[in-house]
Amino acid sequence: MGIFQRFARLPLKSTYIWSLCPQYSTDLTTVDSALIVRSSNTGAAPPRLPFSRVTQEDLAFFRALLPGRTITDPDLLKSSNVDWLKTVEGNSEVLLRPKTTEEVSQILRHCNERNLAVCPQGGNTGLVGGSVPVFDEIILSTSLMSQVITFDNISGILTCQAGCVLENLSNYLEERGFIMPLDLGAKGSCHIGGNVSTNAGGLRLLRYGSLRGTVLGLEVVLADGRILNCLATLRKDNTGYDLKQLFIGSEGTLGVITAVSILCPHKPKAVNVAFLGCSSFQQLLETFQRCRGMLGEILSAFEFLDASCMSLLEKHLKLTNPITESPFYIVIETAGSNATHDEEKLHKFLEEVMTSSLVTDGTVATEATKIKALWSLRERVTEALTHEGYTYKYDISLPVEKIYDLVQDMRGHLGDMAKNVVGYGHVGDGNLHLNITSPSKDPALLAAIEPYVYEWTSEWKGSISAEHGLGLKKRNYIYYSKPSEAVALMGSIKAMLDPKGILNPYKTLPDNIH
Amino acid sequence: MGIFQRFARLPLKSTYIWSLCPQYSTDLTTVDSALIVRSSNTGAAPPRLPFSRVTQEDLAFFRALLPGRTITDPDLLKSSNVDWLKTVEGNSEVLLRPKTTEEVSQILRHCNERNLAVCPQGGNTGLVGGSVPVFDEIILSTSLMSQVITFDNISGILTCQAGCVLENLSNYLEERGFIMPLDLGAKGSCHIGGNVSTNAGGLRLLRYGSLRGTVLGLEVVLADGRILNCLATLRKDNTGYDLKQLFIGSEGTLGVITAVSILCPHKPKAVNVAFLGCSSFQQLLETFQRCRGMLGEILSAFEFLDASCMSLLEKHLKLTNPITESPFYIVIETAGSNATHDEEKLHKFLEEVMTSSLVTDGTVATEATKIKALWSLRERVTEALTHEGYTYKYDISLPVEKIYDLVQDMRGHLGDMAKNVVGYGHVGDGNLHLNITSPSKDPALLAAIEPYVYEWTSEWKGSISAEHGLGLKKRNYIYYSKPSEAVALMGSIKAMLDPKGILNPYKTLPDNIH
Repeated sequence: MGIFQRFARLPLKSTYIWSLCPQYSTDLTTVDSALIVRSSNTGAAPPRLPFSRVTQEDLAFFRALLPGRTITDPDLLKSSNVDWLKTVEGNSEVLLRPKTTEEVSQILRHCNERNLAVCPQGGNTGLVGGSVPVFDEIILSTSLMSQVITFDNISGILTCQAGCVLENLSNYLEERGFIMPLDLGAKGSCHIGGNVSTNAGGLRLLRYGSLRGTVLGLEVVLADGRILNCLATLRKDNTGYDLKQLFIGSEGTLGVITAVSILCPHKPKAVNVAFLGCSSFQQLLETFQRCRGMLGEILSAFEFLDASCMSLLEKHLKLTNPITESPFYIVIETAGSNATHDEEKLHKFLEEVMTSSLVTDGTVATEATKIKALWSLRERVTEALTHEGYTYKYDISLPVEKIYDLVQDMRGHLGDMAKNVVGYGHVGDGNLHLNITSPSKDPALLAAIEPYVYEWTSEWKGSISAEHGLGLKKRNYIYYSKPSEAVALMGSIKAMLDPKGILNPYKTLPDNIH
Repeated sequence: MGIFQRFARLPLKSTYIWSLCPQYSTDLTTVDSALIVRSSNTGAAPPRLPFSRVTQEDLAFFRALLPGRTITDPDLLKSSNVDWLKTVEGNSEVLLRPKTTEEVSQILRHCNERNLAVCPQGGNTGLVGGSVPVFDEIILSTSLMSQVITFDNISGILTCQAGCVLENLSNYLEERGFIMPLDLGAKGSCHIGGNVSTNAGGLRLLRYGSLRGTVLGLEVVLADGRILNCLATLRKDNTGYDLKQLFIGSEGTLGVITAVSILCPHKPKAVNVAFLGCSSFQQLLETFQRCRGMLGEILSAFEFLDASCMSLLEKHLKLTNPITESPFYIVIETAGSNATHDEEKLHKFLEEVMTSSLVTDGTVATEATKIKALWSLRERVTEALTHEGYTYKYDISLPVEKIYDLVQDMRGHLGDMAKNVVGYGHVGDGNLHLNITSPSKDPALLAAIEPYVYEWTSEWKGSISAEHGLGLKKRNYIYYSKPSEAVALMGSIKAMLDPKGILNPYKTLPDNIH
């Protein structure tokens, strides 16, 4: 099983709490008083937890509930068992395709009673192995839950099932004069339920904020099959604790999201994209500062890629660099309500950064196909990297002025060991995608990268996962970004909502909590 | 004790779960299997829970920990025992004024061990009796925790102690070219910790979103004194569950917020305020739709008040109506980066709504003192109402097209029983402040208002508390806006984090969960 299974090397100062699996401690006090041990720096795989195995009786139950939608053919299961990056592969023998919340409820009630583990799966586009089974977990796919439930074109509030593909929702909304508040490269495959479960960031976060603000309501099925209906469509509601937040970003470990209501912005009347070159990262940062001041409320994205990314785009995807070669490239998007005003603001800004030599070259697009072409230079970097062999991927939040230092330090640190060390990402959010490629898997290279990258990030109080989540791959590194008290409390929440631990086991929480 | 103590009349369809106090069920399964009873429509006060009484030994402990900051003089305690509206009064004999997180930790550790109840208090400006003791709870005030810890003028991220007054933070930031992402009438008194604890909405939510998006990190002291440091200063961080969300809006019932980090927007270069009159609410709504389309990204507030509010402003506060009398008044604010562009957009919009007769009269201010004067017509309505006698206050979220129907239906329903039925609030957020005045407390009037107002709201799937929270006054009405499964889960969370229930008892959760 080609599973990417490693344990974190914890920072030396970390101590943390051990609890036996699958018996979770049920409150914080119990967790805290448990035996405290130091982790061993072992690379051993997590053991399969003692869940039941799927029996013929289980299959009969599923087939009666989901006729024609209980998949057991190994060929049909193959693509659901492996992640998009082909770095994590499970061995599930059952894929379930419910169409309704009630069906999801009955599936989970059965699995909880039978102690069967479940891996919820949306578009399976995650980058940390969160959406595929690790062993034989039953795959619960939202792919047939793809109905729009309601859309209110006065408030812009959309309510839909969890399996709606992001791009389909975007198209649906654009026809009605609205847009989704998030956009990301995987939009053609990813499901809105998966986006919410992973608290996906993406390209519009700078402008419209995170899903924690734009998601207004959720319907969730809990581990024991109970349906929690918090599908409000109100901008403001302070009646008790905001339960939906528990399920945003918890990667399907606390419940299965079955429906989402989300606040959608009006479609901007004018969009411009500028693609610019900078000769240093310092100049790029200075350009960002000027940009925020001069473009203000119409700035909707400020992204970057380095020259190494551009080489890979040219080499593997045959994309053409539209400007002269530079060490750094910026994608700036404006979105506003008045084309003339927006163009005037953008023009003044470009004049300023060109005359002050912050930017060495650039091009601007206002037409849809040209905008798409410029955006693809940023959006397709991930795809270009897959042609390089094996890619070690890191998704880091840092103070914005530090983000490229990590790329440079890593290059110095790795020397000739890596084929490529590239950096790109969301400058506006202080979010770096650091990618290190190698012709194939290379344990020596990995040992040189980790824990170096995590220690570096921790030293600058960054996040070791800005937007990708922890999933299987990063679960044990959580202590680099969160104190042990916080992780213990997460374990208590898991124990409260999923006492048998059947929901997406081996994900998000570290092995000492599982 | 003039405590405003009423039980909810539950909607007939509601069934809910009873658990004995103060023994909380520790997980959802236990809660669910507990005895299910129907509420009685009794008006009895909540009983004092069996917490310990403060002893001389306790006082000696507090005095040693907080010399000169352990207040027991009844005269000095008076203002902390009563809410701003003077509708809820407790009988606490101890007010503690810690300066540091460590002191808060030691206070709570002691209180938890001794089973002493605690009422956390910020600026005590809440409107639902959440910030004052009900019986003899120890008042834990954040008033001396008023230090700015850091401010990063590149990212705009502010980190400060919980007791900083909102207006002081606003002034601090404005000197540095930034603003707070929230603003509200009580800004001169309210504390940022209280704002976060109550998930305060206010006047800028339309533009900058809720605190769930702008608060990046919190430091919280748990009921047993443990310090949970989630004080991140990152825009993106997907490492595990987002614990800080538990403490946003939970009104001090799950932990005491001691520090906050928050993302602050750049100070806009240009601000305009328009004060307009409309002859019907339908025209006001149409004006809102045009406004969103034409002002787009520069629209920062769209507020309204009705003619009854204006009469009270004139009568009690001697404010002058700057335009001709109208049934409805709108306050529109624009905030942008280019004064010329903003004025052009606003001018076109005003021309459109005047020529199409949506708006009957209006005035525009661009200068700071005039802007303040126009804003005060909206911000001081609450104050004007206090001069009317007794005010029954309701803070309702509804689909925007329904918000004024409730005011009109209530007028018809109450007839001559009420002195005044007025409506004002945040049109942009679908948030109505419905206020009903009477010369003094009037049980017959109250019986006519409730549960009518809650049933009306529930029928339209609204929220019975949009931004004020539930506190003491509204706790038992939670079932009008949340299903019983959700309330049961809230009880489980409370039990997990505060097993003895010492933190702000009798607040937020309904009595059947307490």
